Amino acid sequence: MKATLIYGAGDIRVEDVPDPTLQSSTDAIVRITHSCICGSDLWPYKSREQTEQGDRIGHEFIGVVEEIGSDVSRIRKGDLVVAPFFYADGTCEYCRAGLTSACPNGSAWGAETDGGQGEAARVPFADASLMKLTVPHDSALMPSLLTLSDVFGTGHHAAVSAQVGPGKDVVVIGDGAVGLLGVLASKRLGAERIVLMGRHKDRTDLGREFGATDVVSERGEEGEQKVRDLLGTDGVHSAIEAVGYEQSLTSAINLTKPGGHVGIVGVPQSGELPNLAQKFMKNVTVAGGIAPTQANMYELLPDVLDGQVEPGKVFDREIPLAETPDGYRAMNDREALKVLVRP
Amino acid sequence: MKATLIYGAGDIRVEDVPDPTLQSSTDAIVRITHSCICGSDLWPYKSREQTEQGDRIGHEFIGVVEEIGSDVSRIRKGDLVVAPFFYADGTCEYCRAGLTSACPNGSAWGAETDGGQGEAARVPFADASLMKLTVPHDSALMPSLLTLSDVFGTGHHAAVSAQVGPGKDVVVIGDGAVGLLGVLASKRLGAERIVLMGRHKDRTDLGREFGATDVVSERGEEGEQKVRDLLGTDGVHSAIEAVGYEQSLTSAINLTKPGGHVGIVGVPQSGELPNLAQKFMKNVTVAGGIAPTQANMYELLPDVLDGQVEPGKVFDREIPLAETPDGYRAMNDREALKVLVRP
Repeated sequence: MKATLIYGAGDIRVEDVPDPTLQSSTDAIVRITHSCICGSDLWPYKSREQTEQGDRIGHEFIGVVEEIGSDVSRIRKGDLVVAPFFYADGTCEYCRAGLTSACPNGSAWGAETDGGQGEAARVPFADASLMKLTVPHDSALMPSLLTLSDVFGTGHHAAVSAQVGPGKDVVVIGDGAVGLLGVLASKRLGAERIVLMGRHKDRTDLGREFGATDVVSERGEEGEQKVRDLLGTDGVHSAIEAVGYEQSLTSAINLTKPGGHVGIVGVPQSGELPNLAQKFMKNVTVAGGIAPTQANMYELLPDVLDGQVEPGKVFDREIPLAETPDGYRAMNDREALKVLVRP
Repeated sequence: MKATLIYGAGDIRVEDVPDPTLQSSTDAIVRITHSCICGSDLWPYKSREQTEQGDRIGHEFIGVVEEIGSDVSRIRKGDLVVAPFFYADGTCEYCRAGLTSACPNGSAWGAETDGGQGEAARVPFADASLMKLTVPHDSALMPSLLTLSDVFGTGHHAAVSAQVGPGKDVVVIGDGAVGLLGVLASKRLGAERIVLMGRHKDRTDLGREFGATDVVSERGEEGEQKVRDLLGTDGVHSAIEAVGYEQSLTSAINLTKPGGHVGIVGVPQSGELPNLAQKFMKNVTVAGGIAPTQANMYELLPDVLDGQVEPGKVFDREIPLAETPDGYRAMNDREALKVLVRP
């Protein structure tokens, strides 16, 4: 079968790899019908050291179950399923607590496991990891359902971590797909005022469609002042940090009111959280991290199925698997917001 | 009157200063009977730049109300009162939310305001800032009541920020007075297992008395491994960071389970929170900061009054005001854990 591999920065290849086979009685083999490229795939695309051997890449997919192990009972052959970007055993203390992304037996896709940007994947703990979809295989909902794998679940996790709720004011820093879905998640959770900080008009326009009440295109201190002026307050209850850079983390803390909450879901690009003195003086709580989408997709699914939310609008390009390398280039060049890959 | 001033690192002087006078109708003048030296006073004692003009210092006190402004109604002349280290107006949105330490009209004592290590102080917003004590002026409870001003309320804030509760496992990093009262606060909140990390036997012995079930004297990775071995788990639900150094912040995050909470109350000595990748991967929440003791003393008072807790045991030396400079030296040399000053 064909799958996407990364060999180094800017070096993405679609190559022949062995077909996946069942390795455990709890595995399933899934023929992938929809996959996509994630903002977090761009980090290795920008910086991965070149190696002889490529690594499988991609961690978001929908597909059809082709084969199941003897202990798989909830999932059946022929089921249409969505996989979380981090699969988990469903039985450990973290899975039971809903923090599936901390499962010690789980993993994100790629590298040591199969990647999502390929024709098929072996899925461990299939009963726990896969969520069955009861829509037709050609449903128009497919892009939105695919976002349950990662990007919508991550935006939701950011909002929950930032304690977004009815009547709250929220700042969302970053107009990538995660930031935009942080807006959508905040709106869904009842936020009153949602300020999106982003400088790409096509993206912030989508942000407004998702529920942003205001857009600020300036960054850093200038942007912070603009947010304060807009709101007429010294900060917001909740800030969503969906970038991962020092400047955006600093702004998230600066813009949060005393006693407020920052939810970080942008993969931190530095080992330190800046602005600690502000955080300390204001008693700002910094929560968030790698999202437990295996758990939270169950909360989000009903609203996707009945059309309450359309997170799939973040996809602005669809390509066949063979064109994945160009999909990376397009996202990296900000030509595309998020690329759907059809193996 | 006499008061303590700091002129620079290691340069503490007790000098004549003008008597305080009412400046606003909501002020009170308090004749100070009990004050003390805080671990946080040692930061300027270690590093403050030398200046011509000294700054008032000290922020914890009990005293007797000598004079009140015309709009003070709850507090009366002759009342015995304890003052929080950060006074607040009691009416702003943060005060109403219980985060008095974020009051925009409030302040910690010292520098621009009167200091606690002196014979008297002008207390703004007296009705809100002062808590009346109904014990005899020579009550044996006085040292414990004095800890409501800062150190017990700060330990309590750490425990609440770290989400300590019944059945939880807690690590407390630091065997200074705040760490030890973090132990006491954790015990009071129902924690099951409380591991105190500290290397001074007399202090950790007091920690055991306060409720620590285990003591680990090693620091850094060695200490972390010891905690894991002791508990037989990969971490705790709650970590209290009561030091403020990079190493202790790193350990607090390393020792917290996925989904767990770190409460920081040690004044951060660096502008960055280290170990962000771990924090992110484990979804550890980092909360805490400057404690709202004006609000939380009301929760803690009853248990002090009926002897349920004896936080005053952290005082192991009592000195008259004139000896305050030596009190600083003794605490800085770790000869004394916490010094009570009797003006």
